[in-house]
Amino acid sequence: MLVVMTHGASPENIADVCTAIAQLGFEARPMPGEQRTAIGVVGNDRRVDDSHIRGLPGVSQVIHVSAPYKQVSREWKAESTVIELSNGTRIGGNEVVVMAGPCAVESEEKLMEVAKVVAESGATILRGGAYKPRTSPYSFQGMGVEGLKILAKARDAYGLAVITEAIDPASADAVGEYADIIQIGARNMQNFALLKHVGQLGKPVMLKRGMSATIKEWLLAAEYILNAGNEQVILCERGIRSFDSATRNVMDITAVALARTLTHLPIIADPAHATGRRDMVAPVARASVAVGADGIMVETHPRPNEALSDGPQSLYPEQLQTLMVQLSQISSALGRPLATLT
Amino acid sequence: MLVVMTHGASPENIADVCTAIAQLGFEARPMPGEQRTAIGVVGNDRRVDDSHIRGLPGVSQVIHVSAPYKQVSREWKAESTVIELSNGTRIGGNEVVVMAGPCAVESEEKLMEVAKVVAESGATILRGGAYKPRTSPYSFQGMGVEGLKILAKARDAYGLAVITEAIDPASADAVGEYADIIQIGARNMQNFALLKHVGQLGKPVMLKRGMSATIKEWLLAAEYILNAGNEQVILCERGIRSFDSATRNVMDITAVALARTLTHLPIIADPAHATGRRDMVAPVARASVAVGADGIMVETHPRPNEALSDGPQSLYPEQLQTLMVQLSQISSALGRPLATLT
Amino acid sequence: MLVVMTHGASPENIADVCTAIAQLGFEARPMPGEQRTAIGVVGNDRRVDDSHIRGLPGVSQVIHVSAPYKQVSREWKAESTVIELSNGTRIGGNEVVVMAGPCAVESEEKLMEVAKVVAESGATILRGGAYKPRTSPYSFQGMGVEGLKILAKARDAYGLAVITEAIDPASADAVGEYADIIQIGARNMQNFALLKHVGQLGKPVMLKRGMSATIKEWLLAAEYILNAGNEQVILCERGIRSFDSATRNVMDITAVALARTLTHLPIIADPAHATGRRDMVAPVARASVAVGADGIMVETHPRPNEALSDGPQSLYPEQLQTLMVQLSQISSALGRPLATLT
Amino acid sequence: MLVVMTHGASPENIADVCTAIAQLGFEARPMPGEQRTAIGVVGNDRRVDDSHIRGLPGVSQVIHVSAPYKQVSREWKAESTVIELSNGTRIGGNEVVVMAGPCAVESEEKLMEVAKVVAESGATILRGGAYKPRTSPYSFQGMGVEGLKILAKARDAYGLAVITEAIDPASADAVGEYADIIQIGARNMQNFALLKHVGQLGKPVMLKRGMSATIKEWLLAAEYILNAGNEQVILCERGIRSFDSATRNVMDITAVALARTLTHLPIIADPAHATGRRDMVAPVARASVAVGADGIMVETHPRPNEALSDGPQSLYPEQLQTLMVQLSQISSALGRPLATLT
Repeated sequence: MLVVMTHGASPENIADVCTAIAQLGFEARPMPGEQRTAIGVVGNDRRVDDSHIRGLPGVSQVIHVSAPYKQVSREWKAESTVIELSNGTRIGGNEVVVMAGPCAVESEEKLMEVAKVVAESGATILRGGAYKPRTSPYSFQGMGVEGLKILAKARDAYGLAVITEAIDPASADAVGEYADIIQIGARNMQNFALLKHVGQLGKPVMLKRGMSATIKEWLLAAEYILNAGNEQVILCERGIRSFDSATRNVMDITAVALARTLTHLPIIADPAHATGRRDMVAPVARASVAVGADGIMVETHPRPNEALSDGPQSLYPEQLQTLMVQLSQISSALGRPLATLT
Repeated sequence: MLVVMTHGASPENIADVCTAIAQLGFEARPMPGEQRTAIGVVGNDRRVDDSHIRGLPGVSQVIHVSAPYKQVSREWKAESTVIELSNGTRIGGNEVVVMAGPCAVESEEKLMEVAKVVAESGATILRGGAYKPRTSPYSFQGMGVEGLKILAKARDAYGLAVITEAIDPASADAVGEYADIIQIGARNMQNFALLKHVGQLGKPVMLKRGMSATIKEWLLAAEYILNAGNEQVILCERGIRSFDSATRNVMDITAVALARTLTHLPIIADPAHATGRRDMVAPVARASVAVGADGIMVETHPRPNEALSDGPQSLYPEQLQTLMVQLSQISSALGRPLATLT
Repeated sequence: MLVVMTHGASPENIADVCTAIAQLGFEARPMPGEQRTAIGVVGNDRRVDDSHIRGLPGVSQVIHVSAPYKQVSREWKAESTVIELSNGTRIGGNEVVVMAGPCAVESEEKLMEVAKVVAESGATILRGGAYKPRTSPYSFQGMGVEGLKILAKARDAYGLAVITEAIDPASADAVGEYADIIQIGARNMQNFALLKHVGQLGKPVMLKRGMSATIKEWLLAAEYILNAGNEQVILCERGIRSFDSATRNVMDITAVALARTLTHLPIIADPAHATGRRDMVAPVARASVAVGADGIMVETHPRPNEALSDGPQSLYPEQLQTLMVQLSQISSALGRPLATLT
Repeated sequence: MLVVMTHGASPENIADVCTAIAQLGFEARPMPGEQRTAIGVVGNDRRVDDSHIRGLPGVSQVIHVSAPYKQVSREWKAESTVIELSNGTRIGGNEVVVMAGPCAVESEEKLMEVAKVVAESGATILRGGAYKPRTSPYSFQGMGVEGLKILAKARDAYGLAVITEAIDPASADAVGEYADIIQIGARNMQNFALLKHVGQLGKPVMLKRGMSATIKEWLLAAEYILNAGNEQVILCERGIRSFDSATRNVMDITAVALARTLTHLPIIADPAHATGRRDMVAPVARASVAVGADGIMVETHPRPNEALSDGPQSLYPEQLQTLMVQLSQISSALGRPLATLT
């Protein structure tokens, strides 16, 4: 931690800050500069609450050197976390995983049809929403627990693993019962009550990055889950909000590469929500694998025009097939095979 | 609604879109242009789900003309909503209200001390967090229901109304029992499960704008609460995220003026969270009243350096006094007095 | 300056950084922490180029404590710069100035008509574009030097001062000859060749903030002009780009208050370009004065619907009159009168 | 074009808008809705200036259906533009090109050393700045024409083509004389005077996207160059500004894929400026090729720590070698070979 004093800070101000640092149990090292004095804090810990110091007279800025997260960091645990699912798929290892399925579960018949497409494409994880957080209260809100039962049926029929979203503690309990991975959506990334809850469920959790969350905030949100006792956390980059409305969001490809250096948790990319356009899904999925993601999540539907939600960003079955081939070639170039059903 | 076709769309594509529009119960009016054809949809309704049409071959874009929200709009209800609290304070009327208090409730003794400062300054609403959504799991998370009881005690002692934050359904029930206004924080603006829950509690709700929520998304979030049966909703602009880290957030002053034209709901400004710096609070509070906000929310503390959270953005009691005088002069210039305890 | 080492940096890495710092002429103070070592640099100067150090093995981050700008800072010159124009208007002093006029000069007849409106409203500075930087090559690009001559004529007729934009060195020379203030537009804020050129012209320059420029970059751009020998620089906040398309830009009101603490240069606010909507201009202009701007710039036109550019954000003459009264009341509340023609 | 009326617009307002549309030479088609009327404009052209209509009473919004750019669009010219350089490298064809070199030309000896590294890696285009637009006036500003001469010498020695930046009309003339491609930097993307100037030089121009320019603004800036008579324009995505300071910029990978559908011009990606970190350059370069870029631009230096600028984002020669192999594999998977010297 570094405390930067204002240009006009008096020797008394500096002495007071040093005293306050000492009271927190750390050593203070003043460094006079031409413009102003900075005070280094030796032996600092990420959990220091700087608000007492930030408010002292003559303090201009407090700069943290240590990352505020701990258990999620590579410094805490150097080797990558690998999460193994019921059907043998391993996320975070050398293989690149593909999650595919409809935006929402709409009926058993339709879901079984999609699950077949997913299994035939070679993907190993089925996605599909039973609880849908929608921007408008007038949009379709999902089938709830009925949808979960349908997902479980499709899983059993095709040997897939299942990932689906929870939106509050009650739905998280239900998802934990029926699915392999509990997804936390971007809008709930800082719903801390929910994070603490899923931290106690003992099921893998996939945490999507908030639309305008910094990488640090994203990792701190994951830290909530680990801190509650659940180490099986997967991160998912799904695009960030920018000034340009030409695409729904901007896929932050660098965040995938950067997060890999900062955390041991697996990282998935979601090109469909990042772009919102079917014709952008394949190129961005390819880029995600090329940059080093541990997997991708895409939407597919036998007849996208009939989907109740997000049809325009769903791949046709044949597009999914083509994409699988391209991803396989790119990941092979990087020495990583695609995960397959055994 | 306007459906814009691609440059190369065929007459069959156009006919198919017209058919789909007709099937939804609307009239289609194709308008051929030099570059491409656009198809107008007559008699459209805001609840139309456009995803079927967006996915049809040859469709480039679907543009919505109607706002997607309804009950919150000035078109639905022209006169401004006025919310009257237990102590007679009216929010959304001609008077400008001031909410003040500590960031968090830390002890009965300290809160009573702040409440006295607040009452003496002339502000009529006491703020103070009992449940704190914190970015880091290692930060102080609030006193919970004990904090609520202390707030209620302070309210009774000084004739103030009380506003405090809820973070999940359970805390919302508790807040609804002890406080006058339930606050929903920026990070929970799209926690739809929570919005539906507070929509059923029959208590005024103050909904903070998400850090990167568009005005449309903010109004749709409010629509969730109204749609659940609660019309007593107050909006709160608290700064948006930008590319510049010089201040914590950017106060979106224009959003206050613009929201006033779009919705009948009252709008409060929170300059402390928008700026994160004590010396910016007063200037931005003045600007908020000058632009037409129905009130402001600020933090104050007798000894900010001792506060457990957000001390650096808390006003000293004498700064609050000075600010109240400036706000009174500016609001008077606009024909609006400050609300006072009667 | 603070050099933060990576978690795994070796003692050799740390020693090498200390050596590199010493070679630059500074003293290095290593501070071991639990997670990593940070190295303080004592006696640092803002002009140090950190790129040699950033690239050394084991370096994670270099944090600058000193601001990179110098001549524009309050630390360099504590008292506010006041710029006096030919007609006696003083910018940056206690008075609040108003600049008004059409977006573009379209003809002598029209400009004289607007200039009359401006003078009668009480504003003292006439604005109007002769060189227009337009996003599309197919939009009206301005009258050039003919427009400048018309502006000079209006100035002489009504005793106003004149501000108008330059877009390259040649136009800057012409503007310097005919106008009182040379305006550099947001899109040219980092056109360093132009900044250096106007730094040599000896005329006041108003530098608009780039649409996504940080405050630091804005001040560094101003530093270019001062460093070239011209101390008469006025800053202009005109709105920044955000994720919400509801308004053209977001007026960064806090930047006005913050810049005042960082620099001695006067600061003007431009609510018309920040919002792009006539009905938002007056509220945001009021907020700008309330937050502490030294003046505002607005557009006005006798018949906005006939304007060749930016008509929709131009005030009707009677709106300008009303605004002047409101601004006068708000600035009076802050102890600052509006500047007037003597 | 679609004119959306306010909820309360009168029949007279609507009639006036229809009249105004007719006066502009177009046909108006009013479409009454439940909430409001929209008026379609048939036969519209992208050059219509909507400001007259936007300011009419009762008009809420004007929505453009046609893109405002023309000559750069795929609708204007369906086949991709291919630009052939003096050394046979073709940009925009099936081959993927690599541009590499130091950030700045620092001396003949050093540049020759880098040029050798570049040629040996298999890249065909040498980059290196002779004119440097720097945020601070106190940073190294480049060697100017001496740097250009050195670049030309290296080109002749190794059979490379040369790209280097121009910052004003004078430097553009010089660059046009010595180099194969004139680069316009992000900060000058809307320096329209410079765009018009390079539009007349008859040399290929590479136009970097502004840090917060929309794709539409970027294409309109390119339109300035084409409209001035120069069709040899290359676009370059170099990262956009976001809210997260974890990386210098965010590489907008989707913009590369989207621009490809909108324009026939070649698109290059610059991962070094997008990320600012050496360890992110290779992953993001791979992603750029995977998403479909026509080439990439990277920085390399035999001893990055000694570079006068941008050393920390320069690749070591062996890193460049490794990257070339990975890029070759990924582009092959997409059916595109890397361009090579023949």
